[in-house]
This record gives sequence, structure tokens and C-alpha cells, in this order.
Amino acid sequence: MFECHRAVRRIRCGMNDWRPRVAVIGTGGIAHVHARLIRELGGELVAVCGRTAAAASAFGHAPPYDEPSRMLRETAPDIVHVCSPHYLHAQHSILALQAGAHVVCEKPMATEIDDALCMIEAAERAGRVGAICYTYRGYPLIEVLRARIAAGAFGTLRRASGVYLSQDVFAADKYVWMFSPGTTGRSYVLLDLGIHWLNLIEYVSGQRIVEICAQFSTHQPERVWHGLPEEGREPPGVREATGEVRVRHGLEEQADMLIRLSDGAAGCVTISGVSPGHPNTIVLSLDGSEAGADWNQQDPNVWVERRPSGNTIHQRSPEDLAPALAWMSRLPAGHAEGYVDAFRNVVHQAWSAMRGKDIIYPTFTDGLCGLRLVEAAVRSAASGSVVAIRE
Amino acid sequence: MFECHRAVRRIRCGMNDWRPRVAVIGTGGIAHVHARLIRELGGELVAVCGRTAAAASAFGHAPPYDEPSRMLRETAPDIVHVCSPHYLHAQHSILALQAGAHVVCEKPMATEIDDALCMIEAAERAGRVGAICYTYRGYPLIEVLRARIAAGAFGTLRRASGVYLSQDVFAADKYVWMFSPGTTGRSYVLLDLGIHWLNLIEYVSGQRIVEICAQFSTHQPERVWHGLPEEGREPPGVREATGEVRVRHGLEEQADMLIRLSDGAAGCVTISGVSPGHPNTIVLSLDGSEAGADWNQQDPNVWVERRPSGNTIHQRSPEDLAPALAWMSRLPAGHAEGYVDAFRNVVHQAWSAMRGKDIIYPTFTDGLCGLRLVEAAVRSAASGSVVAIRE
Amino acid sequence: MFECHRAVRRIRCGMNDWRPRVAVIGTGGIAHVHARLIRELGGELVAVCGRTAAAASAFGHAPPYDEPSRMLRETAPDIVHVCSPHYLHAQHSILALQAGAHVVCEKPMATEIDDALCMIEAAERAGRVGAICYTYRGYPLIEVLRARIAAGAFGTLRRASGVYLSQDVFAADKYVWMFSPGTTGRSYVLLDLGIHWLNLIEYVSGQRIVEICAQFSTHQPERVWHGLPEEGREPPGVREATGEVRVRHGLEEQADMLIRLSDGAAGCVTISGVSPGHPNTIVLSLDGSEAGADWNQQDPNVWVERRPSGNTIHQRSPEDLAPALAWMSRLPAGHAEGYVDAFRNVVHQAWSAMRGKDIIYPTFTDGLCGLRLVEAAVRSAASGSVVAIRE
Amino acid sequence: MFECHRAVRRIRCGMNDWRPRVAVIGTGGIAHVHARLIRELGGELVAVCGRTAAAASAFGHAPPYDEPSRMLRETAPDIVHVCSPHYLHAQHSILALQAGAHVVCEKPMATEIDDALCMIEAAERAGRVGAICYTYRGYPLIEVLRARIAAGAFGTLRRASGVYLSQDVFAADKYVWMFSPGTTGRSYVLLDLGIHWLNLIEYVSGQRIVEICAQFSTHQPERVWHGLPEEGREPPGVREATGEVRVRHGLEEQADMLIRLSDGAAGCVTISGVSPGHPNTIVLSLDGSEAGADWNQQDPNVWVERRPSGNTIHQRSPEDLAPALAWMSRLPAGHAEGYVDAFRNVVHQAWSAMRGKDIIYPTFTDGLCGLRLVEAAVRSAASGSVVAIRE
Repeated sequence: MFECHRAVRRIRCGMNDWRPRVAVIGTGGIAHVHARLIRELGGELVAVCGRTAAAASAFGHAPPYDEPSRMLRETAPDIVHVCSPHYLHAQHSILALQAGAHVVCEKPMATEIDDALCMIEAAERAGRVGAICYTYRGYPLIEVLRARIAAGAFGTLRRASGVYLSQDVFAADKYVWMFSPGTTGRSYVLLDLGIHWLNLIEYVSGQRIVEICAQFSTHQPERVWHGLPEEGREPPGVREATGEVRVRHGLEEQADMLIRLSDGAAGCVTISGVSPGHPNTIVLSLDGSEAGADWNQQDPNVWVERRPSGNTIHQRSPEDLAPALAWMSRLPAGHAEGYVDAFRNVVHQAWSAMRGKDIIYPTFTDGLCGLRLVEAAVRSAASGSVVAIRE
Repeated sequence: MFECHRAVRRIRCGMNDWRPRVAVIGTGGIAHVHARLIRELGGELVAVCGRTAAAASAFGHAPPYDEPSRMLRETAPDIVHVCSPHYLHAQHSILALQAGAHVVCEKPMATEIDDALCMIEAAERAGRVGAICYTYRGYPLIEVLRARIAAGAFGTLRRASGVYLSQDVFAADKYVWMFSPGTTGRSYVLLDLGIHWLNLIEYVSGQRIVEICAQFSTHQPERVWHGLPEEGREPPGVREATGEVRVRHGLEEQADMLIRLSDGAAGCVTISGVSPGHPNTIVLSLDGSEAGADWNQQDPNVWVERRPSGNTIHQRSPEDLAPALAWMSRLPAGHAEGYVDAFRNVVHQAWSAMRGKDIIYPTFTDGLCGLRLVEAAVRSAASGSVVAIRE
Repeated sequence: MFECHRAVRRIRCGMNDWRPRVAVIGTGGIAHVHARLIRELGGELVAVCGRTAAAASAFGHAPPYDEPSRMLRETAPDIVHVCSPHYLHAQHSILALQAGAHVVCEKPMATEIDDALCMIEAAERAGRVGAICYTYRGYPLIEVLRARIAAGAFGTLRRASGVYLSQDVFAADKYVWMFSPGTTGRSYVLLDLGIHWLNLIEYVSGQRIVEICAQFSTHQPERVWHGLPEEGREPPGVREATGEVRVRHGLEEQADMLIRLSDGAAGCVTISGVSPGHPNTIVLSLDGSEAGADWNQQDPNVWVERRPSGNTIHQRSPEDLAPALAWMSRLPAGHAEGYVDAFRNVVHQAWSAMRGKDIIYPTFTDGLCGLRLVEAAVRSAASGSVVAIRE
Repeated sequence: MFECHRAVRRIRCGMNDWRPRVAVIGTGGIAHVHARLIRELGGELVAVCGRTAAAASAFGHAPPYDEPSRMLRETAPDIVHVCSPHYLHAQHSILALQAGAHVVCEKPMATEIDDALCMIEAAERAGRVGAICYTYRGYPLIEVLRARIAAGAFGTLRRASGVYLSQDVFAADKYVWMFSPGTTGRSYVLLDLGIHWLNLIEYVSGQRIVEICAQFSTHQPERVWHGLPEEGREPPGVREATGEVRVRHGLEEQADMLIRLSDGAAGCVTISGVSPGHPNTIVLSLDGSEAGADWNQQDPNVWVERRPSGNTIHQRSPEDLAPALAWMSRLPAGHAEGYVDAFRNVVHQAWSAMRGKDIIYPTFTDGLCGLRLVEAAVRSAASGSVVAIRE
């Protein structure tokens, strides 16, 4: 073990001197991860706002609120982390920005492009930072791959493929609030899952997706709302004697897409919420004119370099990161870093930007780009033909 | 080891009593595998026909010919294995059928649909069997998956995806005869590689592909012919002082496709001949409403059953085959069977059909279906929209 | 992603109300991880003590000291984390206990059994908790396996094997302070690496190792000290003109061992510090009369259940932990937890014991047991015969 | 696919001109594989000798006999393949050699060293070849590893470990004839399984095992004979009213061993017949001073080269074999070769030696070496201490 003899990089977050006052809007599962990260990064959690005061109280960690405006007024946070349902992201983010706070907003940025544009305008007007939780970008190996691609280590990119396979809604009796009309936007699986992959491939490749051709599948168009916490408010639908509600949502759970990147690479990707045995498989698979690469979020500490002479499994190691990114990975190879470590890196990037650091982080603009890709996919699936992405 | 105590199924080919007289047309690498299988299955190799008498003589194993008609006339084989270049499959198969021989033809059946139709007509007129070497269908686990799907073990199929990734022409200076104009048909990568996958997914699923949307990529539109054996005759192009010829072939080496099966399952697949680190990766990945399954030709003795409770790696085992298919797999689990074993199974199926057995084998009709799928993909790639497959 | 609809267990450390004052002795790589965990668990880092004041200052995070006694006197910490070189663990732990602090001590507990006995006595006399950083015990899947074994899910244990393969000192020019005489104890590879595995197998199986037969190998008996930070003070040896010192250490880097557990299971294990391509591979492989299991620290979020019907890969999931252990794993399946999460769990266990909680944690007695196993292995390797472990 | 453009090596067995007359003694599962290989290699199967005439008739393929001497007298085969129970190998081999035939004998060569010595003497006296079916040596990658080790590609060997894990007798009600007294020799698991691994590691490393320290475990000392074909003749034991016989065999099903090779490499290995989920896992794991290597018989077409810079998965490819060994592997990378291909290679080696070729094959001397290693292990397990191997 690396007790004293393996090089362990220092924790140079450079933020030991900043203790921002942070509020969280939303009390679901992800809000708990935010609360933990806020604390670990040295922030002070000054308020939590839930749909109800009871939910906010049960959340713990900080004074509870059930009304964002009042929370903002009374606690005046430096930063607001927006973890509310998707369709409320825009409203809550804009309120926070107008109150002078920076915003870290969960993905998708919004359910409509117009809302996203309003958020960008609000951030600009307020002179505040708006960041989107493209969490998976925070894995150190994403930066390693990105740097190698940029340096031409794989040659010219030719293929950019992958999957985001999840079993989130595989169970036939599973209901999530996103199946309720008006909460989701125009696509369930792309806004909830696919938008991560789309941003990831653009980020890693350093290119834009310029064409999309999509095929949507709805395997279970009707679901039953049981009133469980994660199912959200009672949706419109056929109410059973039991109090359960049958909802004919019509949302796709699977999207297959062809994509073309700006420099000519092509590929395909499947996004699914009903793929059994895949808790959260996010794969990037790249071919270049010199070599290929594969990475899987479920096994995030390795990547595979493919060459005709053999395929090499590389373990994540701090030495593989450029000095400016060394803070993203602190453990020697063989000592797994995980999802929370990646998430912390992304929040750290956003907070650093709020301090004025010149640092790459997932911006509101990145959020908007994701929505445009989803919108293109929706149109393509409807028309059965390729859609070019307009900038 | 299974010396005397593990159950090893008998070799019940049932053909010990048949010693057909077999001829081979073509002298390339695959023709050698055919020659080996003909011998192992108890056939008598009575003639080999090459492009030149020298090639046929160098091939060995049997009397050499350089003219199919003369070979057929002089040796009157019971069966002809057609291993010539793709664009000659039709001509050679029809000659053989007209001479009263059964035909085992390499894939793709032909380069044009009309040729395939003529082959089917010739076989019907002659009352002879025509089989296509969809070799990968011969793996026992393909039958295991097919039977389980048919029995509903995975529920309703929802996703049918995969890849056929190869590095056949990854090297920038690689030339194969298929880059020469007039030899290839309308697609390089689909006719040489993809047609295997397309037949495989239809065979395993028991469904037809009813829609295709394709995206083609040509990463290296110009290649240089050096005059090596596997490069075929000198192609038209720009002749260098060295005798090498620069050919602007324009053929795609990568095809990304969205597919829809007849019962609603959807998926995507990439076929590539330029994917580094992939000697011959053929993956089937299926999701059903109950469970999922994955299989990879490079590791053909295992398949993975995916369920939310965990993903189980199953080793090929003779016990998993129905009695009627027991002859396809004779070794206990843990003792790898390989490509030649699969190939032998397919040839055995075809030969059994020639003896009048009621057995499933890859027919000329299967060959035609493959060509129709490729033709649909070519049209889709040109138009940028979904193409429905006409029967 | 699990934004609001996947069940995420709350962080119920129950220690939000405790903010212990903690000191760290030692400034190497692992000390930084301790500092991070102390902060994350809500402790206040009140002092750091290094070999030199400069080292302690460079460490940062807390007031620096170069003399443990003075540090203890001036800061009176509630807890001391001992991260000094192995041969100083006893001295530093005893000083801390005598000063009334609880102790979290890095492994190995000491380099001599007598020292360990003194530490236990000191803890008992002071009425304080002494814990050992058997870090890998903190992985949730270790608890899952332990519970399943205890419940008989695998039947009677028959085989208990594994490896701890590392490349810590594979490079021929690598020197670590443990090669310096007087710092290491009687075995390099067992005290630095193997002691983790030995404790892990006893903990998981719920049994004791009752017999050991060991074979030691010294592949590179001479190494060169270059004066780098992780190489420690200048060792005795042949001093070159360059200032480098050639040390003939004679320590083994590889130990192969046969073991027998108290209930009859048997197995073998290799511990190596010179195994290329293994950053930190720690494998447990178990056979029972009903099923088998495998786990690897480098891929800590999965384990494999082996049965004749197939081998199932299980993803770590909070649902698989008993309610009392739910706090150990907070992320849904598919979201990797890592080394620091495991480490935090172990420190949390120790701190909880300090608060009087009835909780299992790696105790000084566990530390002593490890030393006894190592001592038995050393005697076995010298004699070439099996050694029984005396309690 | 490699239709005409991938290099496929010719089948240059060089034995097309030899059609030896071959007899098989034994009618169990492995005898069927021998019969198949005899045919594929161009031999004529002239006789099969079973325990009973009925068994030999049921075997098919060749005229049946129930008495080896008569069979040898009447058919005068060029070669005899001995597939009878272990304890009869010596008797049957010596009869065959005395009748002037070459012998291919299944492993283990014999159950007693003295018998093996008699076999060697008989072969020398007769001037005939005696070969042992160390089948796994026939995998091409074994030759690739052997050549690389000999060339120093991994540096000095330091660790030579592995496993042979099987579930042959995992089922509690499983009986095999080897559990019957007098049939087995002094060890069940080493003579049936372990002897393969022991020969393999010596062959691959080019070194001898000079020390063994073994630990035996008997997990199920009593088994019940049911009278099934693979259970052999009725053994002595407690006869139940049902006709079943309870046998207290006392044979170990698991052996853990420490080994030392002649040039200093050390390692450990477990051989087990009761390891669930392992149909036939045979692993070689090697560390050298420059790099390491792993190979697994269940996945025989790949090997892993381990280096600190990453672990590379190499696919078997004909190009990796020296020209003199090119005949051992004929398919391009990505097209799996299997167990029968390896087996055929070994029989081909033996037959070539019979034709006077200067070729390496597993000899009777190799068989004897294996027995000596097993005998050393048996003595070590009894004494609890290291045993040196005498040449």
C-alpha cells in the first residue's frame, strides 16, 4: 500500500480560503449528493428548499424552506444548486441569478430551448456563473482521453460511438415523475440520460455533432402512478379505485441515433432506460486513423487503447494528467476513484469559475447545446430523416 | 479432464455413408478452409479451379483447373463450393447448377440482386440445393440464443443491436481486390462484412429487418494496388513508375445503421473494416422485456444473460442444445470450440439438405434477403432517410 | 441518471454532532488521505507532526510540529492518527494513548509482536480505542460477502485463495524507506501488503488462519538509495561518490503461502511487490460446497458469484447491505464508489467506537493477529514446513 | 471476413502421404475425440478395444474387440492410442509396444512410477515412439509464450503461478470411476488434472520444478456409486439395498502447492475438481523482471502481456509463430481455434515423431516427470514440508 512511498498528489483545490454560502433547491436523491459535495468542498449549506416544508425538513443539513423566493431573500446565498424537477430548472435558476447568486443547475438545463435562452440571458445580465451538472465529465480519464485526442494520439477521428444503457425504468411497474405530462420535455430518455452522452462525446472529441438521425421506441406507453415519493405529484390520467393513476405517457424509453461530428467522424449510439443488467453503462468508443479507445463509466478507472498489435488496458493514474488538471485525480493507480469524485471535480470547476478562475467547466451554453441536439433528434425521429444541427 | 467421465456427445453426422465428389472454385484463403472441411466431412475433393492453372496447382489437394466449365464437364462433381471473387459467384454457381451439382456459395451470394434471382431460378430448375456461407450461424450458441428467444425467455424483444468491427483494411497501405472497380458491388463493408451481421440478427431473432437508416463513411477513398496475390488483377487507375496503381475507389469502410425488426424491436449497428484492435468482433446485443443477452464471435463459447439481479456468463455446453441440434456441439463446457467448428456445422447443414434431410440451413433465399438489406442501406445512405425493406 | 427517482440512502453517520479535535503524526502520502477524511467526517485537524518542522509545514492543513510529545501536550487532541514509518507506530501510538487520545494507527500495527502487546496494554490502561487501518475492509462488498458467508449462502467454505499483487517496487531503481535496515520488521512484503490480505480473508470468512506454509523470494536483494523524499533517511550501506547508497537489504518482495482456515477451508495466496501490470490487485477467491465468489479491489464495485449454471456479476448496490450497514454505501448501482469511500468507512467505524457505539471495527487485537500470522509465515519460510498459529 | 484477402497459412501437415493404421483402446468420451482426430489426420481406424465387446461395438467407427492382445495380433496397427482407465495405461501401452506399434497414451502416463519406467524401457526396446496426451500444450499461444520466455522477452522469470480449477466432481452425488479403490493412484486431483498444469508450466518456462510443498484437502470423503457408465465397475464398499455402493475413497479433490523452478522463480497453484463455475479453467500467470504474462485455457485465443504502462490483450495470430511452428495455427486473428485444434496439434507432433521427424512432442519421459512431481506433492502433503524433486 502507498503509505509513504507512492506519490500522492496534494489536494490543491485552492479553495480552502473560500467558504461560500450555498443553498439547495430540491430534496431528491441527487440533492443529497450536492449537499455532501458542498460540505466537502468547504461550502456552508445555508438553506434547503423543497416542494413542501416537510420535505425540506426531512432533508436535514440546513434550514428548510418551501418557497425559493423567500429562501433567496432571507439567506442571500452566494451559490444556488438547482436540483428541482427538470421543468422548474429555468424558473429556479433565473430566480437565483436575479437574487445575485451563481447557479449550479442539474441536467437537463431546461425542458425547452427558449427557457435555456432566458437562463443564459439572466446569467449574463447578473454577471454570474451558470453551470450544468454534466457530472461524467469530471472523471479524470475523460480529461486524459480529451488531451490525447487533441494531441492527435489516435490520428484523425473516424468513429465516435457508444451507449447509455440504464435499467432505470425497466421494471414494468416502475413510475418516475418524468412520465407525468408537463414535467419532462419532448423526450424522456434523451433529456434524462442521453444529454450526458451527447455532451460527453462533444467534450472528449473537441468537435460538434453536426448531424443526427434518430429512431425512437416506446416499449411501454402506459405506466401506473402509485404515489411513491419519487413519482412526483399525482398526474392526470385514469384514476383507479386504489388511488393509483394509469398514465398514457407515450414517451420513448429508447433512442437509437446516427451522429456525424464536425470533422467527419461518424457513429451510432443507443440511449435506453429499459436495458436489463445495465445500472448505468455509459460507453465511449472511438476509432482514429492511428488507434482506438474505449471507456465505460461503470468501470471508470480504466480505458482501453486499441491497436492492431493489441489492446492495452490503462489504469487511471495521476501521472497521466497535465499539471493544470492534476487536482482532478489524487490517488495512485489501483486505488479506485468513483462517481462522487467525478461529481466533486465538476462542482469544483464551477465554483472555481465563480471565483474568477480561467477554467473549463460545463456552462449554460453547453446546456443549451445539449437541448439543441435533443431537439434535432426529436425532429429526426418524427421525420425519419437526417437533421442538421443549427448553431 | 473429461477422459472418461464427462459426457461427450457422439459425432452423429449421419454422413459416414456419403462420400460426395466435391469441387472448389477459387484458391484464396477461404478456399483452403473449404478444402479442409470437405475432407473432414468425408467428401472427396475431385477438382480445384483457379484463375490460372498455376494458382490451382499451387493450391494442391486436387487436380487443378483454370476453367470452370471444363472442370465441371470432366469431373462431374456432386457439389461445387464457390469461393471465387464476389462478382463471379453468380456465374460460377449457375454453371455448377446447370451441370447438376449442388452449390455451397461464399457470401455475399452476388453483387447484384438480379444475379441472385437468376441463381435461385437456376437452382429451382436444376432441383439442386443452393447454400450460402453465413458461417457464423454455425456457432452452437447462436442456436441456443435463437431457441431461447423463440421460447420467450427474454420476453418481447425491444433492442437488437451490435457491431461488426474489423481491421481488415485499417492499414493505410492495405489493398484488397474488392477496392478494384467492378468486383465489389455497391458497398464494400456491407457486402463483405455487414451481410453476415444482418443475416445473423434476423436468424437469431426469428424476425425480419423491416426498416433501415444508414450513414456511410469513406475514410480513405484512395488506395494503392501493389500487385500482391490478395489484391487481385491490376485495377484501372493511375499507374506509377513502380508499377503500383493508385485507385480512387470511393467505397465506404464504415456503415452505421439504425434498424427496426418486424415485431418492433429497434437498434443500431456499426460495420467497419477500419476499427483498430478488432480482428473480427461480431457482437449481438439484445434487450427483451424480461432479460437481455450479449454474444461476441471473438469469444464464441460464452454468452451473457443480463438481468437487473446480475449478469450471468454462460459457458457453451452441449446440454444446452435441443436433441435435434446436439450434433452441433460435441465438447463439454470449458473446452473451446472455434471458427472451423462453426463453419463445419454450416457446411454439414447444407450437405444434409442435399441428402434430402429436413434441416435449416442458410439458403439462396437467405442470400437474396441479405442483398436486399444492403441495397436498402445503400439507398438510405444516399437519401439520408429511412428505407422500408420490400419483401 | 438518478436525479430524483433512484433511491439514495441518506448519510446517517450520526456524527454531525461530534467535531473531534484530531492530530496526525506523519506527513507522507497516506497522511494526506487521513487529513482529507478527518475533514470530511467533520473533525477538526488541530496539528500535524512531521520528521522535521519543514515537512510538517509543507504538509499544510494544520499547525506543524516536529515532536509528538510537545504536539500532544500543546494541542491535547481527542484522536491521533498515526501515519509515521512502521517501526515508530508503537512509540507514537503509546504516547498518544498516554496523553488520553484515541488512536487510529496505520498498518502494520507494529514491526514486532512485543510492541503490539504494549500498544494493547496502553490502550486498555488509558481506556481508549485503538484502531488499525485495514482499509480494504471498508468496501461495502466485503460486508456483503461476509454476510452471505455467515448466512451459508455458499455452503461450507472449502477454498480461500487470492493474491495481493503490486508493482510498488518493480522498477529496478525503485527505493522505498522500508528497504532501509531497522525500519521494516521481519518481512517487507507481508508487513506492507500481505497483512491486509490476511486480515481480509479472516474477516470475510469469519474464521481464523490456523496453519501457514510460506515460501519467500528475494528477486532484487540490493537496491540504491537516492535521497528522494519517499526513500527516508540515509540508510547504512555502501556510499557512492554521487551520494547514493547501495543497500543490501535481503528483504523478500514475494511471498507464496498455503493457508488453512479453522473450519477446514484451504487455499494459497501470493503477495508480491514486483508484479508488473498490477497497481494494486487484491483478490479474494472462495469456493464453498454450494457456490463460489470472487472479488478484486481494483474493480471494487462488482463481485462474481460462481455456480455450475453460470457465473453472475453482481454490481454493488445499497440494497444488498443489511440496514445496520446501510451507511457504508450510498450510491445506486452503476455509480462507482472508490478507495477513499472505503477508507472513510473504516475511519468512521473507529470514530464511532470512540463515541461508545457497539460497532465492528479493525482493532488493535486485529492488528496483533496480523503480526502473528506474519511471524508464522516468516518461521515457515525459514523452516520449509507448515507452522500452526498460536492464539 | 477473410475470404480471399487475409493470409491463411496452408495446412502443411506433411502427412498427406502417410495413412497409418491406428487402433484405439478405450471407449470413453476422450476415445471419441481420438477417433475423430485419427480420421482428420488421415489415419485409418482399424480397431477399437473396449472393456466389453458391446462397448466396443457401440463405439462404432471400427471393428470392435474386447481383448487388447487379440486386437493387436489380428490388426497389427502402426499406432495404438491408449484411452483406457489410468491404472491400465502401462499394461496396454507395453502390449502395444511389444506388438511393434507406436503409442499415444492418455495422461497420466501411469498410476505408479515403476510402471512408467517399464513403459519407457518397453518403448526403447521396441524402438518405438511413446507420447503422452498433454493436450493443452498444443495451443498455439503456449508456443508463443514459450518462445518469448526463451527469448527473454519477460526478463528473468520470478513468479510462475496459476490454477487448474474444475467442477468435474462438484456435484455432491457425482461419482467417477477414479473414486474406486485401485484405479486412481495416490492422488485423484493431481493425476487427473494437476499433471497437465505441472507439465505445462515446465514446458512454457523451459525450467524444471525443483521443489514442491503441497497441502491436500478432501472435502467429500464418501461418494455413492450408482452404476452409471462413467462410474466404472462396481467398487468395493457398502452396498445399499438399491444396488448403490457407498465408497469411502478418502481421495483429495483439492491440492494447493508452492513450487520453485530451477532458475529461482516461485509461485503457487491450486488444483481443484470441486470449484463451482469453473468448467475447465487452466491459468498460467508469470512475472518476469521485465514484464508479466497471463493465459487461460478457457479463453485460449488471447494472452495478456503485463507491464507497468498497461496490460495488453494479444489475440492469437499465425504471424506470431516461428515458421517451423506455423502449421499449429492456421486461422487469422479473431477466428477462434479451440480444444480439438490443440489436441490435433499434439497428436500431429507425436505422429510426426513416429515418422522420424525431429520435432518436440510430449514424450514418455515427460509423462514420468509428471508422475515424479505428483509423487513429491503426495509426500509433501503427508509430511507438511518442502520436498525436493529428484531427477
